[in-house]
Amino acid sequence: MNKSSVPDRVIRRLPRYLKKLDDLICKGDERISSNELGRQLGLTPSQIRRDFNHFGEFGWQGYGYNVKFLRRHLAHILGLDKRFSIILVGTGKIGQSLLENFDFNQYGFRFLGAFEICEELVGTTIAGYTIMDAKLQDQFIRDNHVDIAILSIKSSSAQRVADELIASGVKSIWNFTEAEIDPGDSGVTVENIHFSDSLLVLSYFLSEKEN
Amino acid sequence: MNKSSVPDRVIRRLPRYLKKLDDLICKGDERISSNELGRQLGLTPSQIRRDFNHFGEFGWQGYGYNVKFLRRHLAHILGLDKRFSIILVGTGKIGQSLLENFDFNQYGFRFLGAFEICEELVGTTIAGYTIMDAKLQDQFIRDNHVDIAILSIKSSSAQRVADELIASGVKSIWNFTEAEIDPGDSGVTVENIHFSDSLLVLSYFLSEKEN
Repeated sequence: MNKSSVPDRVIRRLPRYLKKLDDLICKGDERISSNELGRQLGLTPSQIRRDFNHFGEFGWQGYGYNVKFLRRHLAHILGLDKRFSIILVGTGKIGQSLLENFDFNQYGFRFLGAFEICEELVGTTIAGYTIMDAKLQDQFIRDNHVDIAILSIKSSSAQRVADELIASGVKSIWNFTEAEIDPGDSGVTVENIHFSDSLLVLSYFLSEKEN
Repeated sequence: MNKSSVPDRVIRRLPRYLKKLDDLICKGDERISSNELGRQLGLTPSQIRRDFNHFGEFGWQGYGYNVKFLRRHLAHILGLDKRFSIILVGTGKIGQSLLENFDFNQYGFRFLGAFEICEELVGTTIAGYTIMDAKLQDQFIRDNHVDIAILSIKSSSAQRVADELIASGVKSIWNFTEAEIDPGDSGVTVENIHFSDSLLVLSYFLSEKEN
């Protein structure tokens, strides 16, 4: 099976499946049909079967899906059993909010620490983490083989800092700046949270409805 | 032309085109070929032509695209000339970051105000905006015909507050909570910024590379 042929839109539905399965496990449900799963997610049963078929056979005719079995496989497909390590670069409001509200461990990541260039913030504690000096970042990434760096700094510095992180050896960048990061030929994965793109898409749909 | 038939992935590329055109205008460029636009965006020229063809003819054979003309049409397609009104509901770290860093006016929106349930924050000023009491929200939305509400509150209250906003008459919700908002049969548009979904997709691509 060639996973790289999986369409982007299918990959982007996987987290929703995982969340739904977590809800079902919480409620004590042990199995679910593709009809019912589809109803709860606003998708057709055949769409769900097609999505899962990209990765293997997880359901049985007449039984449906075993919730825990499917959850375990989805978590594996999403790499959550790999326990990827992650650091935060930049502890402005967005960075602080992630530290305070985002449970990296629960999702299967190892959060290692947060770095900051602003001297007044270095040494302070946010959500139990002591903020480290950005000057130590390079050595920390090399020593700890950091998988993911969260980039939460000014857009104007984004490419320069991304270049440094890539040179230090991070394998991927979770980009919260509005800048488009060019990873060059490093092979580093960049995943963007571009607020403005999302708002413009909302505006498109709103405008379309009014026409 | 039936705009509702435009694929989601095409719609989600439009903000990137707009940003690139803004860059070109800033640099004083007056025209660009689909070859060059494609090179700068990492897309093929034919993909760009196909994307734009969903909305009309904006280029000329042998000339390419007039940058300002194309920018104006894209802004219209995205509804940015409608000057949609927008309010912020919830002034935690994410909400504060949006107030301080996001230039709603520059993107073509009218930012009207921010609401908060926490009494200590009501009456304080963030980025020049005096935070209003959430109790006044309903009347404010009705009086001002608010188009978009930014939902930046606890996930556990998300659906309840979304129901209230919909009852007050907002036309769309920009959802920063991790909750899936069900707009029922209201016809309200919900656009999500789900941090965890984005991180899990990043994890998928990272895991795939390691296999």
